[in-house]
Amino acid sequence: MKVQGKDYRTVWMEGSAVKTINQPLLPHAFEIVSLATHRDTAEAIRTMVLRGAGAIGAAGGFGMAQVFAEAPPAGADRREYVQRGYETLRDTRPTAQDLFYALDRVRGAGEAASDAQAAAAAAGEAQAIADEYVEAGRRIGENGAPLIADGASVLTHCNAGWLAFVDWGSALAPVYFAHRAGRRVSVLADETRPRAQGARLTAWELAQEGVPVEIIADNAAGLLMRRGEVDLVIVGADRIAANGDVANKIGTYEKALCAEANGVPFYVAAPLSTFDADCPDGSGIPIEQRDGDEVLYAYGLDDQGRRARVRLAPEGVGARNPAFDVTPAGLITGIITERGIVKPRADDIASVTTGGRN
Amino acid sequence: MKVQGKDYRTVWMEGSAVKTINQPLLPHAFEIVSLATHRDTAEAIRTMVLRGAGAIGAAGGFGMAQVFAEAPPAGADRREYVQRGYETLRDTRPTAQDLFYALDRVRGAGEAASDAQAAAAAAGEAQAIADEYVEAGRRIGENGAPLIADGASVLTHCNAGWLAFVDWGSALAPVYFAHRAGRRVSVLADETRPRAQGARLTAWELAQEGVPVEIIADNAAGLLMRRGEVDLVIVGADRIAANGDVANKIGTYEKALCAEANGVPFYVAAPLSTFDADCPDGSGIPIEQRDGDEVLYAYGLDDQGRRARVRLAPEGVGARNPAFDVTPAGLITGIITERGIVKPRADDIASVTTGGRN
Repeated sequence: MKVQGKDYRTVWMEGSAVKTINQPLLPHAFEIVSLATHRDTAEAIRTMVLRGAGAIGAAGGFGMAQVFAEAPPAGADRREYVQRGYETLRDTRPTAQDLFYALDRVRGAGEAASDAQAAAAAAGEAQAIADEYVEAGRRIGENGAPLIADGASVLTHCNAGWLAFVDWGSALAPVYFAHRAGRRVSVLADETRPRAQGARLTAWELAQEGVPVEIIADNAAGLLMRRGEVDLVIVGADRIAANGDVANKIGTYEKALCAEANGVPFYVAAPLSTFDADCPDGSGIPIEQRDGDEVLYAYGLDDQGRRARVRLAPEGVGARNPAFDVTPAGLITGIITERGIVKPRADDIASVTTGGRN
Repeated sequence: MKVQGKDYRTVWMEGSAVKTINQPLLPHAFEIVSLATHRDTAEAIRTMVLRGAGAIGAAGGFGMAQVFAEAPPAGADRREYVQRGYETLRDTRPTAQDLFYALDRVRGAGEAASDAQAAAAAAGEAQAIADEYVEAGRRIGENGAPLIADGASVLTHCNAGWLAFVDWGSALAPVYFAHRAGRRVSVLADETRPRAQGARLTAWELAQEGVPVEIIADNAAGLLMRRGEVDLVIVGADRIAANGDVANKIGTYEKALCAEANGVPFYVAAPLSTFDADCPDGSGIPIEQRDGDEVLYAYGLDDQGRRARVRLAPEGVGARNPAFDVTPAGLITGIITERGIVKPRADDIASVTTGGRN
């Protein structure tokens, strides 16, 4: 998508390095970082230099390709290096299914090849995954765009735009397609505390593409739905259980309850790589607990234009900071995938997820 | 209540000046400001130097007493001064019923007296209102405390503690009474973006009193209720319509939906002065729209200990910032008043609100 008029992907491979947009600097500075080894890539995922289900999936895949390229040429040392590299990448974030999906695919491709061919095979598989994310985003956009009528107001939570994937995104892809088709569409972006991905990332990427966007406090979604100022909600997903329960950024469940109470359609948009067939329902999805400082502070640009944080809370008081929640399938109108819009029911989900991706 | 071990009220009169705690400085600094004239008092209400239904009610009453003390001794000039002063104070904030309640009472007392006696009569009435808030808070605490079992976790939104009143508060008064009675009670304080009254004020005043408190992002309330980590919700109110619909800080409605979906009791605590018999239901309550900068920025202490703000959002993107929402009566378990716990139904409300306050 466009940044200052130029096309970018969120994450890509250049030689042996993984390159990505440094997302904590957004929207105040646009900077590309280079991750030389799989350990750098793992650290970037862990510290959320890049975040979002598809972006950490693609980065995890590239990182696993780095593991094969870095590993000793053969033998037990090589096997141990691959295993440890896999674990280093896997243990960065617990909730997003795409990370595990990509790691397993790239590891499988590398291990299926000869030691001499493994690095190339893994790199090829990682690139294929990244390209598939782009294609999945495009199809999610095409499949979801008809839901957005001319003049529609779409509410979204967190960032499930192209910054959360490789291109296009999930929740925002239908918005981009409707916008490019000439329909007037505007977005209400939940700020999404504590990390403000909505205020920082969703607002930034929509503005770069020329889509009208306003930021609201997370607390305001209910009132605006009650007033009829929201036509539909579209959010992303970090993991979708077999029964259609959806783990996504903390607060998604509250928005789904607001939508249900006010008759507003509530859509989840996600590629098939986000579905976890091994997870029967949402109770099995691990919820990442992050540092309370994310809640006790806010991060941004000070009045001198420097990156800074401000402490909101009194000293000596702590915070509880779960990073995701689970929205029960019953609150979800439909799941927009690259294979069409699926009802959040076990049989419908199984029918699109079996038979491989795309 | 206690601040560094010493007893304070939120707002009081000293000679001709209104004194109040400078709340935007909390929790990082504790400072008393002196408001010399009714215009200073009005400006303090407007800019939220003090905020909260009862606190702006009491401050409005004191400000109206200042109007009578400042007014020309007699005649048309005096009547015009009183009228203008009343309007200046009335036009500061649109949503909280207590402001209008107190202004009308103090104006009535001043106008019922002779010109020579009016200032003293108005000051006496304003002081009576402040004292009644203290007494109402005490009774709300007594009436609500039995709802809080030993070991209970109470979730609250915004600040409806003593800082929002004159002493004790509304939503937090039952917590203080249960705590002083020796029961283990802990509080989950919603941060309450955009102005973070929960992270700043609720956390601070509970910590000063030794009540265990943790801050959560507004987005986390739904998950915590679903996990069974919240035993009951108690919030305050800015205005209660005759049918039991409650206007309160933006986000209250979302918490009520979360509570309803998870079988968590949802209580509103408010003195009778917050009930507006002239407002048949919530649709008639004006909702204050505040400056979008409150959403685009966060305010706190920087790492050098200076007050600072940080910009979260990209330049050129705006925010929509409604300050209150309306929770329909049907989502409310009960309203804790100084006359007991009332069902949110027109007949029950009428039976406690008629016949005067207290």
